[in-house]
Amino acid sequence: MGTGWRGSAGLGLQVLICSSLLLNAVLFAHHFLGVSPPPAERLGVGVGDGLSWALQAAREAEAVAAVDCSGHGSVFLDGVTGEDGKPGCECNTCFSGPDCSVRTPNCTADADSGNPLFLEPYWRRHAAASAVVFSGWHRLSYTTTDLFQSVELVRHIRQLHRAVGNAVVDDKHVVLATGSMQLINALVYALSPEGNAASPPASVVATVPYYPAYKSQTVMFDGREYRWDGTTAAWANNGSRNPTRDFIEFVTSPNNPDTSLCKPVLAGSSAIVDHAYYWPHLTHIPAPADEDVMLFTTSKLSGHAGSRFGWALVRHENVAKRANDYMQQSTMGASRDTQLRILKILKVILANLRSKEDIFAFGYAVMRSRWRRLNAVVSRSTRISLQKMRPQYCTYFKRTKEPSPAYAWVKCEWEEDVDCSQTLLAAGIISRSGISNEAGGRYTRVSLLKTDDDFDVLLERITEFVDAEKRSRAPAGSSSM
Amino acid sequence: MGTGWRGSAGLGLQVLICSSLLLNAVLFAHHFLGVSPPPAERLGVGVGDGLSWALQAAREAEAVAAVDCSGHGSVFLDGVTGEDGKPGCECNTCFSGPDCSVRTPNCTADADSGNPLFLEPYWRRHAAASAVVFSGWHRLSYTTTDLFQSVELVRHIRQLHRAVGNAVVDDKHVVLATGSMQLINALVYALSPEGNAASPPASVVATVPYYPAYKSQTVMFDGREYRWDGTTAAWANNGSRNPTRDFIEFVTSPNNPDTSLCKPVLAGSSAIVDHAYYWPHLTHIPAPADEDVMLFTTSKLSGHAGSRFGWALVRHENVAKRANDYMQQSTMGASRDTQLRILKILKVILANLRSKEDIFAFGYAVMRSRWRRLNAVVSRSTRISLQKMRPQYCTYFKRTKEPSPAYAWVKCEWEEDVDCSQTLLAAGIISRSGISNEAGGRYTRVSLLKTDDDFDVLLERITEFVDAEKRSRAPAGSSSM
Repeated sequence: MGTGWRGSAGLGLQVLICSSLLLNAVLFAHHFLGVSPPPAERLGVGVGDGLSWALQAAREAEAVAAVDCSGHGSVFLDGVTGEDGKPGCECNTCFSGPDCSVRTPNCTADADSGNPLFLEPYWRRHAAASAVVFSGWHRLSYTTTDLFQSVELVRHIRQLHRAVGNAVVDDKHVVLATGSMQLINALVYALSPEGNAASPPASVVATVPYYPAYKSQTVMFDGREYRWDGTTAAWANNGSRNPTRDFIEFVTSPNNPDTSLCKPVLAGSSAIVDHAYYWPHLTHIPAPADEDVMLFTTSKLSGHAGSRFGWALVRHENVAKRANDYMQQSTMGASRDTQLRILKILKVILANLRSKEDIFAFGYAVMRSRWRRLNAVVSRSTRISLQKMRPQYCTYFKRTKEPSPAYAWVKCEWEEDVDCSQTLLAAGIISRSGISNEAGGRYTRVSLLKTDDDFDVLLERITEFVDAEKRSRAPAGSSSM
Repeated sequence: MGTGWRGSAGLGLQVLICSSLLLNAVLFAHHFLGVSPPPAERLGVGVGDGLSWALQAAREAEAVAAVDCSGHGSVFLDGVTGEDGKPGCECNTCFSGPDCSVRTPNCTADADSGNPLFLEPYWRRHAAASAVVFSGWHRLSYTTTDLFQSVELVRHIRQLHRAVGNAVVDDKHVVLATGSMQLINALVYALSPEGNAASPPASVVATVPYYPAYKSQTVMFDGREYRWDGTTAAWANNGSRNPTRDFIEFVTSPNNPDTSLCKPVLAGSSAIVDHAYYWPHLTHIPAPADEDVMLFTTSKLSGHAGSRFGWALVRHENVAKRANDYMQQSTMGASRDTQLRILKILKVILANLRSKEDIFAFGYAVMRSRWRRLNAVVSRSTRISLQKMRPQYCTYFKRTKEPSPAYAWVKCEWEEDVDCSQTLLAAGIISRSGISNEAGGRYTRVSLLKTDDDFDVLLERITEFVDAEKRSRAPAGSSSM
């Protein structure tokens, strides 16, 4: 039988088998072993994934993402490079070492900033869908599809508000900005009397406790057409209110720091309603917001605070026009790079709404759990208390939701704890004192928005603090007793 | 011989050949036909280029880049989508059609904006090196490696200035911003007397012809600590200058619009020297600039105007600190997305300096050619003239360079052409009137920075305009006769 190989047909068969095996070997090597595949251009066909110029950047990004930081840190493409010329792990607070595996003993919990890192795991889970490749020539121009604003991005912003039901957007203009921060002064400008010595400056006000940037930014810009005029309490009740004066009232809803839903209190004022936190992971949504001027930001929607991206929904055309003029004059709009990236992010959010990968369901689960755990500890305390929150019906989830606030608004109940942030600091917790928002030292804001690591350390410190109460003296004349 | 197939060894051989051929077919299909390859994760090995989550985004970017717009347009990832859900070609001015192949007859040349699109071909040539992949979780945080500024980006900015020799950077602080536009008011703020009713406001001034945004932005913000106080001519000579007054003088060098190198004219003023155009493709570099406060922008360095990215070099720490405070208060710094992208762009520029792929050599060749061709036409005209420029030694190129200015500063010489921009507009050329920078209607700025298509159309219109002179009446009493 073996003799069959010797004739000419046998030779043909031999060649067939050998070349087939060889081709297999070559293809196998290219496919699975990464043996230097010839460039696609030379073959004239797509090799492997068929990539050409985007391949190198994609490999760089994946290489950086693959570095192990023990689950307690990240490497970023623009991280500080070490001696090997590569960026290293940036560790979460309370972790250190080259791979962030070393936990700092008795580490102070930093609960100061509202850094929305609780959403980072969501984006790691949606890595493929949320990645964007920038070509070197992407949008060099000063102008994009609608002057400084991307038509597609604005369309997706409108679509998101409609799908979530948190704002009436159809009768509003959309003004994009370098974070909602930039919109604070842009809208003060847009709502102030136009450069006219005859008009008194508009009074910019807010209700205690308020987000301090409304005051600090207004004071810094210090335009002649407006001035910071304190808190609404002084103007709300009566005669001290000058009827010829224009008020521009900042309202944050849910409020920062105390997370309650708020309305303007000065009748007849121009209100700028900051809805940074008005998304279903951080509050229930009783109804779509429909104020004349509303602010939103990706910082608290998707967690993209570093992108510096926000937008206003503005009912009146002349106000939107003035806000857009401000954007043009001050920065010629928001970075077109960021506009592309946020477009991709919104597409992922939209594609997953009401699915098991819904970002709001994800964020709500995290924040509800944190609030529950924090409450379980603080409820044992007589020394500190939290804002009272109860389950509420949410039109987005179509059911009653437990609280899932961005911040704990902590009150120190013992008489001697006049500076609550100092009291917490002594217990190893950095918080933001109520003095900054004129609520007074009895209150302090504790951020719940950061990483799981941050929250875990915070809960440790709070638990130790509450456990220590029994060992400290009973409070004398405390209001909570 | 055929009988050899019937035994058990023959069967084994048959199976071997068949399975080998089948495996060939499968691998071939995966490799070259894109037949649904199994995901890398399932195989547990890298497929093809070894990419996982970045693959989809890389494919999207390459697909968009591969669309044919006839060399007269581009598709961008965030372009307006058509009925097929995909973004279409965005055509250069004077081109239209789905693939930008239709040239508009007698099209008006738009030479208004300083849109730096002449550098777009450079980035297409360096596609692989300049691409960047953003993961969905890239820099969510408010803070990056140095609060709001990337340490690596600042390091590369310093490295670039040293390598190019256009600014002394070692004794300066670097302040990043959302375009150098944002730095205009940031530095006016930083150099004005601190909120203090006792100090008179600083006088913000510039020399004619000046970049109009210095005035328009200063007037818009209208802070109480400064005011726009006109042009330097009124203050330079004499008694009208109040010695107790603080001056903040804007200087652009090379100047926009007339492209000459400039110095501050008011002795003792705080000068803000805008070096947007002080790069070797747009001017010769006689020496590194070393003013106390200098502005730069990617818009004119690399062509990335849409990124909205600029920086200041600031000598004095307190001025840098106040400018940084402004950045924090107004926008919490420049987009971290843009900071990553510009880092990659600067790396490409640095890697190619003084090679045959030097961006400045590329840009210089384009701009010198445009200036030559424009001069060849305009030199035949008695009706319009250009600014006089002569070859100058450039320390970067280490040789004498021909002029390669960003703008033609056109003067209408005929007495009746009192509004030069209108004269050009009648000839089908949109320019920016000298009225906007207080140079008067006799002058108008013509941008040379845009696409090759833009320049070609401009040259056609100018050629027609100059050719038409012979057919129009001889000028009476023209200053050029």
